[in-house]
Amino acid sequence: MIDELRALLGPDRVLTGAETAPWARDWTGQYEGQPLAVARPGSTEEVAGVMRLAARAGCPVTAVSGGTGLVGGGITEGGLILSLDRMRRIGPVNRAARTVEVEAGVVLQDLHAAAEAEGLIFPMTFGAKGSARIGGMIATNAGGSNVLRYGSMRRLVLGLEAVMADGRVLTLMSGLHKDNTGLDLRQLLIGSEGTLGIVTRATLSLAPKPAAYATATVGVPSMEAGLTLLRRLQDASGGQVEAFEFMPDIYIDRHVAHGGTPPFAERHPVVLLVELGATAARDTVPDAEGRVPLDRLLEEELAGAFEAELVSDAVLAASEAQRREMWARREAAAEITFTGEPVVDTDVALPLDRLQEFFDRVRPAVAALDPEATDLAVGHLGDGNIHYTVFPSRSEREHAAALRAAVDDTAAALGGSFSAEHGIGRSKLETLRRLKDPAAQEAMRAVKAALDPAGLLNPGRTIP
Amino acid sequence: MIDELRALLGPDRVLTGAETAPWARDWTGQYEGQPLAVARPGSTEEVAGVMRLAARAGCPVTAVSGGTGLVGGGITEGGLILSLDRMRRIGPVNRAARTVEVEAGVVLQDLHAAAEAEGLIFPMTFGAKGSARIGGMIATNAGGSNVLRYGSMRRLVLGLEAVMADGRVLTLMSGLHKDNTGLDLRQLLIGSEGTLGIVTRATLSLAPKPAAYATATVGVPSMEAGLTLLRRLQDASGGQVEAFEFMPDIYIDRHVAHGGTPPFAERHPVVLLVELGATAARDTVPDAEGRVPLDRLLEEELAGAFEAELVSDAVLAASEAQRREMWARREAAAEITFTGEPVVDTDVALPLDRLQEFFDRVRPAVAALDPEATDLAVGHLGDGNIHYTVFPSRSEREHAAALRAAVDDTAAALGGSFSAEHGIGRSKLETLRRLKDPAAQEAMRAVKAALDPAGLLNPGRTIP
Repeated sequence: MIDELRALLGPDRVLTGAETAPWARDWTGQYEGQPLAVARPGSTEEVAGVMRLAARAGCPVTAVSGGTGLVGGGITEGGLILSLDRMRRIGPVNRAARTVEVEAGVVLQDLHAAAEAEGLIFPMTFGAKGSARIGGMIATNAGGSNVLRYGSMRRLVLGLEAVMADGRVLTLMSGLHKDNTGLDLRQLLIGSEGTLGIVTRATLSLAPKPAAYATATVGVPSMEAGLTLLRRLQDASGGQVEAFEFMPDIYIDRHVAHGGTPPFAERHPVVLLVELGATAARDTVPDAEGRVPLDRLLEEELAGAFEAELVSDAVLAASEAQRREMWARREAAAEITFTGEPVVDTDVALPLDRLQEFFDRVRPAVAALDPEATDLAVGHLGDGNIHYTVFPSRSEREHAAALRAAVDDTAAALGGSFSAEHGIGRSKLETLRRLKDPAAQEAMRAVKAALDPAGLLNPGRTIP
Repeated sequence: MIDELRALLGPDRVLTGAETAPWARDWTGQYEGQPLAVARPGSTEEVAGVMRLAARAGCPVTAVSGGTGLVGGGITEGGLILSLDRMRRIGPVNRAARTVEVEAGVVLQDLHAAAEAEGLIFPMTFGAKGSARIGGMIATNAGGSNVLRYGSMRRLVLGLEAVMADGRVLTLMSGLHKDNTGLDLRQLLIGSEGTLGIVTRATLSLAPKPAAYATATVGVPSMEAGLTLLRRLQDASGGQVEAFEFMPDIYIDRHVAHGGTPPFAERHPVVLLVELGATAARDTVPDAEGRVPLDRLLEEELAGAFEAELVSDAVLAASEAQRREMWARREAAAEITFTGEPVVDTDVALPLDRLQEFFDRVRPAVAALDPEATDLAVGHLGDGNIHYTVFPSRSEREHAAALRAAVDDTAAALGGSFSAEHGIGRSKLETLRRLKDPAAQEAMRAVKAALDPAGLLNPGRTIP
């Protein structure tokens, strides 16, 4: 098959041996696996050709784009890695329809730039934006910091194209906002983590670029106070809150320990990063002091919340540089989580009214298993999505699994999810077997068998 | 099986013979079929029991809730009708999380009332709101007049429960906004029109109730002018446009012929129903004249558009009664479309920048087939969704099919869809066979066979 792949793609597009090293270990260092080879097709036709060769050879195929996933979904032991990194074309932005066609290998940051050049935004963003690519973001239904206002990938992908297990091309490219023509295979593929098909292209929805942002770092006395503040800001602004990010004291402490600057002189139980995006024209006209109405609105709401003892301290970004600094604190999360020491990272979602209860329960549950463990939490409070991390005092695999189960079970017991936005991949397959509705697991297996009967696409991942 | 059904549900919950008449013909009079019987279970367990009996007997099952569909999806020839009309429980509204659990037989209007009693809204609405039920709305991924702001059912259903072909209960009830735990079976079931499972319950997302609406009927000189007005209103209000409904001259004429009042003394090529919903607190504070800022914003924008010759005439609703009157004109669509005369109703979606081209092409295409045919159009302009109707001069079935094909093919040639929100059912299955990507059709068949191997759920519908 390797020779055939070389004949198809050109010899330098098929890597073997030492050249495959970048695909043999994930960036967090948690997952390893030696691929048979790495194929780097440059077009949908080439992806289809690779799949046909792999199907004939019965060789498993794991599609990878940016390789920034956190659940080991892009690592294979002995299979073929199909890397989409060469497919980076960004179609012209359709300004009237506010859409753009992209290939799966487009880096998120490049898409941001292309949209902004036309006065629009592709609204999804997160720390790994300089490396993450659209194909993987679709395959994992990525989320990030602006889901509150704009939704996850599931809402931003209008159409897509995918290569199926037998090499056939499924063409669902569409720029339409409404399309009820049968089963929604697009939604089935989004979040399927490369187990049903390989996404090669997509039509994405763009949004008007907010003419201004009002951004603040806010210290609050409690989770409950933070959630009340969120409701007040949403009501005051009519839903213009773009981000409402959660950094409790344990996060700030660790960030400072890694060289970050503390946001306030005093320590607060919860620090929030709040951002409103001004999309209404009247919110974007600066006054004599150069401030837009949305800035004033945020300031007044924070002042009101301070009087109501919902807010202990707050600082508004007075410049784009200050705004960037505030975001840098939040976006350091991955960097201060994955430092080489043993780590149990999780990605739970809770109903908003059960968040405090989650923390009240999870810390004793972890302490019961490992009294010396330390923890870290950060997340998207507006979505009820918390990345709760345990740094165990011992590195045995079973111990890590027990800690992970304690966190996930605590979330599940409160009506929560054990995977809010990272997906299942390899690391959460056992949890899925334990916690997901058995009829749903059976349906997942049936759909997988129907669309990939030979089980070639990312085997051992995602599907129980 | 009938006896067993009676033993399971009680004798008066299983209808046969003349009692089945309401389920033997759809409300438009276009589709007919005599069911074997109608079963009316009152709980998920009873639905599961019915499915187990039907599976053992090899009897096809068509789930029906409100029976307001337009594509013949709820009509069976000889199969069992499973009516969800008794399952009407609306769980308590969770105000903090802005969610509610409902059963599949809940009437849309009852849900509206339950949400509004708690200061929230379930934002989907359309003409049939007094009859349509949630189960069918999920099964068809219903749309309606507020999709522009709030999305279709696909975006409003957070979790669901469904009974599968073998009677097993798939439990995906969840109030979470983020949940990436494997294949999204929820999205697969939404829009599957009863072919993969029977939706019995759902967790729905609610929205803050706009404290005020600014509503206007607007005459514009062209489609293009209307679309420009939409962009201006969205930019000015920051996306607070709730509805942007399209009633061209041919619609107004027919509405008037059926006893409606004309919106303006003069005739305009296009009449729009525009509604903004004030969700930002500052937009809801009335001034000395009792008008809220959003009213002023709409008035000023319309005045500016008038000066720019984008608007020819406009009237703002000065009271709730006037607002209702404006909506009644739009919601009369079904009533003036289905009057007993032969009718070819369609449901196309176009990219916004191809809408005018669609009309330029479709009218000659129809005239070429039937020079004496008359036509009607109405729709959701903000979504690019047009219900274009032809009243043919002859009633033969083949003639109707040819006219339908002419409309659908015209939309398809412009990158459009032949089913924006009504679904496939029986009436669009041939069109799907002709126009949908062959690989997608194959994938639909494979998924259907995987989840309903005996083909019991709504056979002959939706799946090619």
